[in-house]
Amino acid sequence: MKSPQSIGSYLIHRLHAHGVRHVFGIPGDYVLSFYDLLQRSPLRIVNTCDEQGAGFAADAYARVRGLGAVCVTYCVGGLKVANPIAGAFAEKSPVVVISGAPGIDERARDPLLHHKVREFDTQRRVFEQLTVASAVLADPQTALAEIDRVLHAALRFKRPVYLELPRDRVTVPGLPHHRPGNGAEPSDRRSLRAAVAEAAAKINAARNPVILADVEVHRFHLQDLVLRLARRSHLPVAATLLGKSVIGEQHPFYLGVYEGALGRPEVRRHVENSDCLVLLGAFLTDINLGVFTARLDPARSIYATSEKIAVGLHNYENVRFEDFLAALARAPFRRRTLPRFAHPRPAALGPLRPLRAPLTVRRLFARLDAFLTPEIVVVADVGDALFGAADLFIPGRTEFLGPAYYTSMGFAVPAGIGAQMADRQKRPLVLVGDGAFQMTGLELAAAVRHGLNPIVVVLNNRGFGTERPMQDGPYNDVAALRYHQLPALLGAGRGVLVRTDAELAAALAAAKDYTASFFLIEAELEPNDRSPALQRLTARLAKRV
Amino acid sequence: MKSPQSIGSYLIHRLHAHGVRHVFGIPGDYVLSFYDLLQRSPLRIVNTCDEQGAGFAADAYARVRGLGAVCVTYCVGGLKVANPIAGAFAEKSPVVVISGAPGIDERARDPLLHHKVREFDTQRRVFEQLTVASAVLADPQTALAEIDRVLHAALRFKRPVYLELPRDRVTVPGLPHHRPGNGAEPSDRRSLRAAVAEAAAKINAARNPVILADVEVHRFHLQDLVLRLARRSHLPVAATLLGKSVIGEQHPFYLGVYEGALGRPEVRRHVENSDCLVLLGAFLTDINLGVFTARLDPARSIYATSEKIAVGLHNYENVRFEDFLAALARAPFRRRTLPRFAHPRPAALGPLRPLRAPLTVRRLFARLDAFLTPEIVVVADVGDALFGAADLFIPGRTEFLGPAYYTSMGFAVPAGIGAQMADRQKRPLVLVGDGAFQMTGLELAAAVRHGLNPIVVVLNNRGFGTERPMQDGPYNDVAALRYHQLPALLGAGRGVLVRTDAELAAALAAAKDYTASFFLIEAELEPNDRSPALQRLTARLAKRV
Repeated sequence: MKSPQSIGSYLIHRLHAHGVRHVFGIPGDYVLSFYDLLQRSPLRIVNTCDEQGAGFAADAYARVRGLGAVCVTYCVGGLKVANPIAGAFAEKSPVVVISGAPGIDERARDPLLHHKVREFDTQRRVFEQLTVASAVLADPQTALAEIDRVLHAALRFKRPVYLELPRDRVTVPGLPHHRPGNGAEPSDRRSLRAAVAEAAAKINAARNPVILADVEVHRFHLQDLVLRLARRSHLPVAATLLGKSVIGEQHPFYLGVYEGALGRPEVRRHVENSDCLVLLGAFLTDINLGVFTARLDPARSIYATSEKIAVGLHNYENVRFEDFLAALARAPFRRRTLPRFAHPRPAALGPLRPLRAPLTVRRLFARLDAFLTPEIVVVADVGDALFGAADLFIPGRTEFLGPAYYTSMGFAVPAGIGAQMADRQKRPLVLVGDGAFQMTGLELAAAVRHGLNPIVVVLNNRGFGTERPMQDGPYNDVAALRYHQLPALLGAGRGVLVRTDAELAAALAAAKDYTASFFLIEAELEPNDRSPALQRLTARLAKRV
Repeated sequence: MKSPQSIGSYLIHRLHAHGVRHVFGIPGDYVLSFYDLLQRSPLRIVNTCDEQGAGFAADAYARVRGLGAVCVTYCVGGLKVANPIAGAFAEKSPVVVISGAPGIDERARDPLLHHKVREFDTQRRVFEQLTVASAVLADPQTALAEIDRVLHAALRFKRPVYLELPRDRVTVPGLPHHRPGNGAEPSDRRSLRAAVAEAAAKINAARNPVILADVEVHRFHLQDLVLRLARRSHLPVAATLLGKSVIGEQHPFYLGVYEGALGRPEVRRHVENSDCLVLLGAFLTDINLGVFTARLDPARSIYATSEKIAVGLHNYENVRFEDFLAALARAPFRRRTLPRFAHPRPAALGPLRPLRAPLTVRRLFARLDAFLTPEIVVVADVGDALFGAADLFIPGRTEFLGPAYYTSMGFAVPAGIGAQMADRQKRPLVLVGDGAFQMTGLELAAAVRHGLNPIVVVLNNRGFGTERPMQDGPYNDVAALRYHQLPALLGAGRGVLVRTDAELAAALAAAKDYTASFFLIEAELEPNDRSPALQRLTARLAKRV
């Protein structure tokens, strides 16, 4: 008979089975014994500077690999990841929060153990608001099944979950002979068949159907099915900002990023004039869809997500998103020619001649666009780093990460760490404003420590550029740092300050050659220079302030 | 008739009336209109690098001034202060969290506004776990009264509170003719009289009564009353770690810091052998009291806090802490001579001769002890920065700030900013480990920006020194930064690396002379060198890992 597994070992085993290879976090006494287990397991611990950074890194890791994990101590660690986990919830990223906790037995004796806020379950109550499933692994009789239930919820809904592991339960054996359940609830076959038949008929009856692919296509890793559907049906594919890079942006079927009135007019025209919009994995949020300038009619849509399948006004229950998409991609479609549209690549600038004039936002993105290769994953922080990046031409697939709905500043530097840990073949290009960099930029220390080499472009416009046009005041200024001096503090990496396009071109070339550690480019920009997309966005947001 | 005040103006007005002069935070679009009001008010906005720093700064500000405020945007800002606010709850610090939010009217139209996690009240639900009172100021009919209720709770319980201000309510007038209520519930006179009479009689009947002063004496600013009580009754005064510096530590009545078996044996003997322990504002937590090595008998105690008044086994209801203490300080006491005890100042080292041997933790604290003056406020982070500092001899009063119960790393640098903003006559001496410095040390950028000049000593022992003796592994290492190079990044301040006592002495002298900005001393320490207090603590904590 096999000896029963401990609760801690089983958790590690299941994470590994779901593809997790790295756990981000910072230890503390309530979680030390689990760290000891992790250290002796096939999972690698990735320390960050602050738990906040670990949370963002795990989110990016989950977006790339399908599941991520952050492991922290009770309250002083756990509550620091409340915001990154809220972002993972909002943007559907399956992150497992593992928190140490006081032992169940010591709780009875000692009412005021350190790190406790109010009640022993205060932290769990907080995370109930921010996750789709949670459990305190207190009872060895149920702990293994609870781990299954909670991990299954993360994978099913692509949202974060919370597991609290009291320190006196880590090495306690769970139920012997426990086997992980399958967990998958199959689609109802009749509903699936009916939904696909109606959807295919609707597409075939339409004059100008268009696919709009959004975030869940990334999360469920259904990019191949979307491409197959597009190829078989000859439908063009647009992507939302959260869905950007869902198919390679040089693909002939790729229409561009749809952002309502904020995006390229041609994309908007195709999408909004379509008599059959196929919304795949969509997430109808304000910034993602251009602050509700979008006008999308449900009666003329096919809407498929993990939470709902609807063809026109007919909802179908018990049909899984991935089953629907797989079946639809096999459905019979009538012959159709792909409509003609301009390629989304920004007006060809030819080989960019280096300019000696002060660098502009527009030129910065043109230069970055020319710099991209399939080996690069773009990670954008909030502000023009994100909105300007919307027009970047991403050559690969799934190679654009940005908090385009929750828009929490400080995402990009730690997310770059998570993204590169998830796929060491890639090199992150992190785009980050000066305000956001001050929040989490020091996490480059973790990049140094773990041998990562992101290229980081700090868009230094001396303040919160998204807010200035809405309402300005000294509170929109940020402290004036010399970002390119960061290597002096970290004792590694390279940093350069660029003020002109020519200097940027030289810096990017140097970054490409320097792969030993991070390469930071501080790009000095005019405080009131903004990308066209951000200009349109802030004009709309300002109306609501 | 006076024109009715807007909800936002009234909130500012009431904060000002309660002594608040600075509001810490970072703006975002949902809170911009309130920032505009703040900017035109007598309150000064203090931007930090990250909201986490604003939370810790507001906590320290509240500890010094009696009320603090942090003002953030919805979710992406608010959830970043969950951990600092949890710490303020645990250690009784009255911080007002003011969060912007989507307008009430726009919520109906737009179900997925940016920054939203799950429901519109998700953030409020989180803060209900971490505060003593909360309100969403949605209804102009009740908003002003709600502000009164919530601020009153902060002052009454010395705990954080939460106010959410939807952006379409900021400039909406509240009820006309509203006047702030008094809010104070007076003590029941008979109970008060009976409690004080019994307490005085118990003290008079005792052979060796001792006062043990804790955190609430600081929070309710009752230091003068404790001193008066000690003088009139001739009782010696010990303090807990959270209560440290509750009376000047050179005072003849001052016994020292009581930390159970972790502290000085003489203090322990006096406290634990007392036949009448007068516990004032006490908070019986594990680390604060030496991981429960303390043996305190309720029958032999007088116990007075804001939540409970008990004399021996008799509880008295409806008696306020401050009323009890004021009346007790006026009670008749029999003649008694102060017992003899050694002064807590560590063995006089005389004028410290500079040593050229590698710096030790013990020598570091001896050197710091000699450096202290009444103008310095010591702000300690978690680890030996805190436990080693327990033996520092604080000359002033209320001049020691440290998270001695909640023990969240990253507290000290931003708390130093808050403490100096609260009292510009003081200069913070921030003691912080390398691990904690990586979490929030960049907030020194905010110190530069706002003209503050803390002295920061980074205890660089290359890792989490509190954890190493409990259980060690590579996860206890932190990235190797060159902390003294920080001025290169910030473009201001001074930084020096010290490896010997002689270098430390020179650095401290230079720090005293340099007052233009922050002065950072990176003290290189052996990874396994620990203060005696921390050695004893970690030996006990290790038993529970």
